[in-house]
Amino acid sequence: MKVDKKYISQLKEESKDIRDILVKITSKNGGHLGPNLGVVELTQSILEVFDLPKDKLLFDVGHQSYVYKLLTGRKERFETLRTRDGIGPFSDPRESEYDFFIAGHAGSALSAGAGIAKANPDEKVIVIIGDASIANGHSLEALNNIGNNIKNLIVILNDNEMSIGENVGSLSNFFGKLMISNAYMNIRKDVRSVISKGKVGIQVKSVLERIEHSVKQFFLPSSISEILGYQFLGVIDGHNIEDLIKNLTIAKEMEGPVFIHVKTEKGKGYQLAEENKEKFHGISPFNPETGEVESSGRTYSNIFGAKLVELAEVDKSIYAISAAMVKGTGLGEFQDKYNDRCIDVGIAEGHAVTFSAGLAISGKKPYVAIYSTFFQRAQDQLIHDVGLQNLPVKFIVDRAGIVGEDGKTHQGIHDINQFLTMPNYRVLAPTTGEELSQIIEFSKDFEDGPLAIRFPRGNAFELRENIKSKFEIGKWQEIKKGEKNLYLATGAMLKEIMSIENKLLEKGLGGTIVSCSSIRPLDEKFIVNEFSKYENIFTFEDGYKKGGFGNEILSFLNEKKIMININIIALNSVAIPHGTRNILLEEYGLRGKKLIERIEDSINGEK
Amino acid sequence: MKVDKKYISQLKEESKDIRDILVKITSKNGGHLGPNLGVVELTQSILEVFDLPKDKLLFDVGHQSYVYKLLTGRKERFETLRTRDGIGPFSDPRESEYDFFIAGHAGSALSAGAGIAKANPDEKVIVIIGDASIANGHSLEALNNIGNNIKNLIVILNDNEMSIGENVGSLSNFFGKLMISNAYMNIRKDVRSVISKGKVGIQVKSVLERIEHSVKQFFLPSSISEILGYQFLGVIDGHNIEDLIKNLTIAKEMEGPVFIHVKTEKGKGYQLAEENKEKFHGISPFNPETGEVESSGRTYSNIFGAKLVELAEVDKSIYAISAAMVKGTGLGEFQDKYNDRCIDVGIAEGHAVTFSAGLAISGKKPYVAIYSTFFQRAQDQLIHDVGLQNLPVKFIVDRAGIVGEDGKTHQGIHDINQFLTMPNYRVLAPTTGEELSQIIEFSKDFEDGPLAIRFPRGNAFELRENIKSKFEIGKWQEIKKGEKNLYLATGAMLKEIMSIENKLLEKGLGGTIVSCSSIRPLDEKFIVNEFSKYENIFTFEDGYKKGGFGNEILSFLNEKKIMININIIALNSVAIPHGTRNILLEEYGLRGKKLIERIEDSINGEK
Repeated sequence: MKVDKKYISQLKEESKDIRDILVKITSKNGGHLGPNLGVVELTQSILEVFDLPKDKLLFDVGHQSYVYKLLTGRKERFETLRTRDGIGPFSDPRESEYDFFIAGHAGSALSAGAGIAKANPDEKVIVIIGDASIANGHSLEALNNIGNNIKNLIVILNDNEMSIGENVGSLSNFFGKLMISNAYMNIRKDVRSVISKGKVGIQVKSVLERIEHSVKQFFLPSSISEILGYQFLGVIDGHNIEDLIKNLTIAKEMEGPVFIHVKTEKGKGYQLAEENKEKFHGISPFNPETGEVESSGRTYSNIFGAKLVELAEVDKSIYAISAAMVKGTGLGEFQDKYNDRCIDVGIAEGHAVTFSAGLAISGKKPYVAIYSTFFQRAQDQLIHDVGLQNLPVKFIVDRAGIVGEDGKTHQGIHDINQFLTMPNYRVLAPTTGEELSQIIEFSKDFEDGPLAIRFPRGNAFELRENIKSKFEIGKWQEIKKGEKNLYLATGAMLKEIMSIENKLLEKGLGGTIVSCSSIRPLDEKFIVNEFSKYENIFTFEDGYKKGGFGNEILSFLNEKKIMININIIALNSVAIPHGTRNILLEEYGLRGKKLIERIEDSINGEK
Repeated sequence: MKVDKKYISQLKEESKDIRDILVKITSKNGGHLGPNLGVVELTQSILEVFDLPKDKLLFDVGHQSYVYKLLTGRKERFETLRTRDGIGPFSDPRESEYDFFIAGHAGSALSAGAGIAKANPDEKVIVIIGDASIANGHSLEALNNIGNNIKNLIVILNDNEMSIGENVGSLSNFFGKLMISNAYMNIRKDVRSVISKGKVGIQVKSVLERIEHSVKQFFLPSSISEILGYQFLGVIDGHNIEDLIKNLTIAKEMEGPVFIHVKTEKGKGYQLAEENKEKFHGISPFNPETGEVESSGRTYSNIFGAKLVELAEVDKSIYAISAAMVKGTGLGEFQDKYNDRCIDVGIAEGHAVTFSAGLAISGKKPYVAIYSTFFQRAQDQLIHDVGLQNLPVKFIVDRAGIVGEDGKTHQGIHDINQFLTMPNYRVLAPTTGEELSQIIEFSKDFEDGPLAIRFPRGNAFELRENIKSKFEIGKWQEIKKGEKNLYLATGAMLKEIMSIENKLLEKGLGGTIVSCSSIRPLDEKFIVNEFSKYENIFTFEDGYKKGGFGNEILSFLNEKKIMININIIALNSVAIPHGTRNILLEEYGLRGKKLIERIEDSINGEK
């Protein structure tokens, strides 16, 4: 074993270097600084004690794996963090043999770890999971299952008493506070000492023994981990390397599953991050001296949030529901003003959806704001609880399309097909900030069924011409009139097509540009009356092609037996990596030069 | 309050009548007998104590709501249980004002109840949930959230120590066994009595007081319900009406949330069902004297199960994963023979999928057998953990298409579009039992990515002609050669088209019949070479039209700029009610006369 004073002192030196690198690189590239500052010593200790990569380490979510990346051969390239072709934002087997399984969405690591441990009984599988993630349904299902039969799994609860925003839900507190083995041990000592002192009579002694028995029988397993069949270690100071190494070494020798409770502090060692934990959880590039971040402009999220605040002032039946992303989805002000009508359910998207269905069936007007990629967690609830009952729940699909630096696990490119293949859903994708505002206004009294409203990350696009967005459901809006070519753009793609308009004109590829915020219902009248006037028809969407906007039009044409070929410009791949949004849009053919090429090739028959 | 001896005796009389009706009707119509026999007294008591339908009662899953249906105005029509236009299999607001929210899939009731309670603070919302359902991720997310802030919700844990098969996972046991308020109360009494007797000195007294304090601080909340912020009542004998009414009355007056632990016995009062709990959980029509069920033929599930047993004998890397449906998915024999390689994770589909991804990335060959409708619970895991990593997990999509008596919440009509809109998935739908067997054989060494294999409920179809099914991936098989009309049938639809073949010939609508088990990849060569030879092209699938088989072909044609109209015969609706499978297939245009009409109308342009 490597625990000796000298070695520990080296580790302590190393931990300082690591923290310096973390601050330096994230201040330039942005990223998850706070969580990584919190797990420096924990990661070092695991690498000391276990035999990686033969033993496997999984980080739930994976945004706290920077330290691990630095210590497993990725230090040289670490300055490329979150950039195209650079070190990725989460864990990924394609990046290193030390990353055995993909990570990105919260809650998956315990399940994956269980499968890996089952398949590799002679190796140790260690899963690090935060106190917010462990209360997610996926985690709890796995925790439940592991306790029965997986002996070589070690679960490390990284308890920083804070999820992304704040700790939501009582189960998180439970995991954070009720690890009580020590308390039992103390009582036992007390009882024994009273008895041994011989100062009590037989009757009292028997009562005391009964107490001890009861305590043991009923109370010993009263941390959930022990009840569930885990060996329990902790609580351990997550910044004390000696303690960590000692306990991890014990855990390694135990027949498990083992559950280790480690307390850490987010932002540890960088004062600005210690003092403002939420801000530094995931942060854009910042000034490392002052912590200042360049302020962003008027985002779609802000526009949604501001409009909802305005409507909720008058209409008391409006509720906002978030899954651990109140600020991220623009609901910060709503939460401050109407706290009782803002429900943050934690990382629990399935619950968020069905909870909202319960509100809606009772006559309330719930707005469920979740990032596109996380709606995947609520597929069944969207169909079963909302769709089949045709309830008027509003789904705010934030971060739709390419999200950028968060990479392939977080791309918001499945929501269009997800909602289009469900019963009763209307699907809207505003093309401008102004239109988003109009749609939120419109949605308030829309009682006809569920509505999905999707928009991208980042600042809102506005038309700079004399044209004003004017939303009407089932109606598309001609922005520019032209000939020969018809360009139908939904959501974020109107901006992209407008920005290449002049180049298209130069190349003789000008045409009519149409803003298509209504994906379902389609503007059937427009399709029937206008399509035949053009030689080439293009649809543009920032989502996966399968089952999307273009295919919805195609299906309508086929049904009406209208024989027109359309050029569907969408994403053909789903494993879209990390990098800036604009770089990726261009690389995947939805922006700038590449988009122009795609249009040219289509017209020239070389697609 | 209505608790008096006379009234109780009336209730006891009533409970006998109810049990007689339950046995009588389910023996004719089939249904969930065991669970309903277990909740007779509980349901009666709730109706006595609460003010329904002003207060709201939700049954998780809803298959245990027969007693409730009988007692809320649906007795006269109860003999129509599970038949077309008859009383439904689960809870449904369209059936009665006493059913406030839809039910069908396990785990949704706590979430819905939370939303309803939040929206109706002056009413009581009561949720009855079983010990298997409560360990589902969706339930746990809700349980976590409710404890924080929903005062008017009452959760009743219906603990019959058995889920559908057996209790799986340690969390279920936890809920079943660790409700320990009484234990604390006893200890407290003991400590007080020792102190009050004055037989101990100051020192001992202080130790005892310390013990009491510790017990209170650390141990009192050691049932998960109390920890989570619930008031706790129980354990209550679920067949003792007096006790039930007394405790429910207390619960009604409490500021909640309240968690009530009730012990019941599945099958109570009908000896055959008490003795064979699993068989009588959900049962086909049976002889009420002997319990005998008409034996079914050779089902697709059996064929899958038998083939996997055969393969697993030789290939030790084959694993079978089930989510509380080992027998239902044909894995009974596999479980008996290879217990260590058969993992039943309980009602936890998300975990099942990611767990299998962990096995696959470690070089094992996992087969995940889940009913089509329940794959909706694992959308994110299918994309994020399997699809993005392109892992060779095999998904056995049982009960695909119309399932029949289980009705709208359970129809397996989303799986085609679900898998087609995901990255890297191959989608196969065998058209015969023989072909299913071939596909399972083929799948064993298919390492190229995930495979979804869908098939319907019930007995396997086999070709009776000289033609033998011969599976090849990406290749369709001409079963009958004809002219003018091309009939492309996938999965269960081959049987339907074969059975109307003669009638089509009579009407001069004969044509070429093709078995299309390969949905992705399509047989592109066939499409390119053969389509143009026909006047009318039909595709047939027993799934929702959006994003399905027909649309996949349409999209391919559009990409290749092949201008051919196709008639996509699929399900246009998703809220398909309960009734026999054949009746529903016909009613929704996929069988017999209605299917012929649809074909005729399409050809005559009247679709």
